[in-house]
Amino acid sequence: MNPAKARTGRRAGDSGTRDAILNAARAIFAESGYDGTTIRKIAADAGVDPALVHHFYGTKERLFVDTMRFPAVPSDTLRPVLESNRRQLGETVVRTLLAVWDDPHFRGPALGLLRSAVTNEQAARMLRQFIASTILALLARTAKPEDAELRSALVASQVLGLLLARFVLELEPLASASTDELVRSVGPTFQRYLTGDIRRGH
Amino acid sequence: MNPAKARTGRRAGDSGTRDAILNAARAIFAESGYDGTTIRKIAADAGVDPALVHHFYGTKERLFVDTMRFPAVPSDTLRPVLESNRRQLGETVVRTLLAVWDDPHFRGPALGLLRSAVTNEQAARMLRQFIASTILALLARTAKPEDAELRSALVASQVLGLLLARFVLELEPLASASTDELVRSVGPTFQRYLTGDIRRGH
Repeated sequence: MNPAKARTGRRAGDSGTRDAILNAARAIFAESGYDGTTIRKIAADAGVDPALVHHFYGTKERLFVDTMRFPAVPSDTLRPVLESNRRQLGETVVRTLLAVWDDPHFRGPALGLLRSAVTNEQAARMLRQFIASTILALLARTAKPEDAELRSALVASQVLGLLLARFVLELEPLASASTDELVRSVGPTFQRYLTGDIRRGH
Repeated sequence: MNPAKARTGRRAGDSGTRDAILNAARAIFAESGYDGTTIRKIAADAGVDPALVHHFYGTKERLFVDTMRFPAVPSDTLRPVLESNRRQLGETVVRTLLAVWDDPHFRGPALGLLRSAVTNEQAARMLRQFIASTILALLARTAKPEDAELRSALVASQVLGLLLARFVLELEPLASASTDELVRSVGPTFQRYLTGDIRRGH
């Protein structure tokens, strides 16, 4: 058992405090966006010490993930990409992406968040900032330093489109393509976006 | 003035007949999807001769475009891509896409349709079939014959993702990238999907 859980899980009043923190976080993320929210602000609003928020949730990323019921913590999920051999980055992005999205337990809630971002401006802003601060910031660390921001945004665009085509519109033959087929067809796109020449057409 | 308009625009009862056709079309497209709908069925439901539907709307594609208030007719919009020099296909796809989508008169209604497809299963099915029967079918004619369907679906996935990132989530630096920057960064992706090797990783 996780020792942190064992230590904190049985104290009286914990679940009330956690709820107060989550409620404050939900309101402040919605009002100020991901970037404009701090642990300190949430703690003040919930009437607790910031150290307690850190104790329960660790980072702002994890607190957001819990608040939004986001189905995974990007910095955990993306570890294989960060640790990938540089020449296999494109393949690793495809495999990591599909390992997560092909799991219906992840996909259901994640599609819910994508849907709200597409239909609601406030949700779009929160998701945009969260993606930029976590997923894109991590991806940029794997990219060539020149144009690292553009590179990771290009990766995000092909990821979003693949998800939309495969899981929302269910466009064939993409909807039923195997992981290996997508590694061969889409992997080189991610590889070029992250490490190739994106400033010169051909 | 369009002679067809001059000939048909002033006949008594025309606008009532057009409305009856559009109402029938709306109901049948929603019930049977794009593929399952025929001009004959719509005519029967509207109580008119199929020839009259053809006279007013030409093709099923144009009737769908009018029914759904789809902001452009794909077979018109994609003409530059179909007529493109083979080696400039990728660049032409980017330029054609942005010429249409950077126009707010197109973008507003088009995003509305995309939003409803993302949130509503019936709308997703209609849009999927319409995209497959029109846009993807046209794109497939520009692609290498081997895997032409997969190739055009891959193009669609990068198009959808680019639209989502640039216009819905407004991810920077993609949201404010110039057409020329996108030609250089994304053009080669479309070029490879349509004409390159998509069966072998690297």
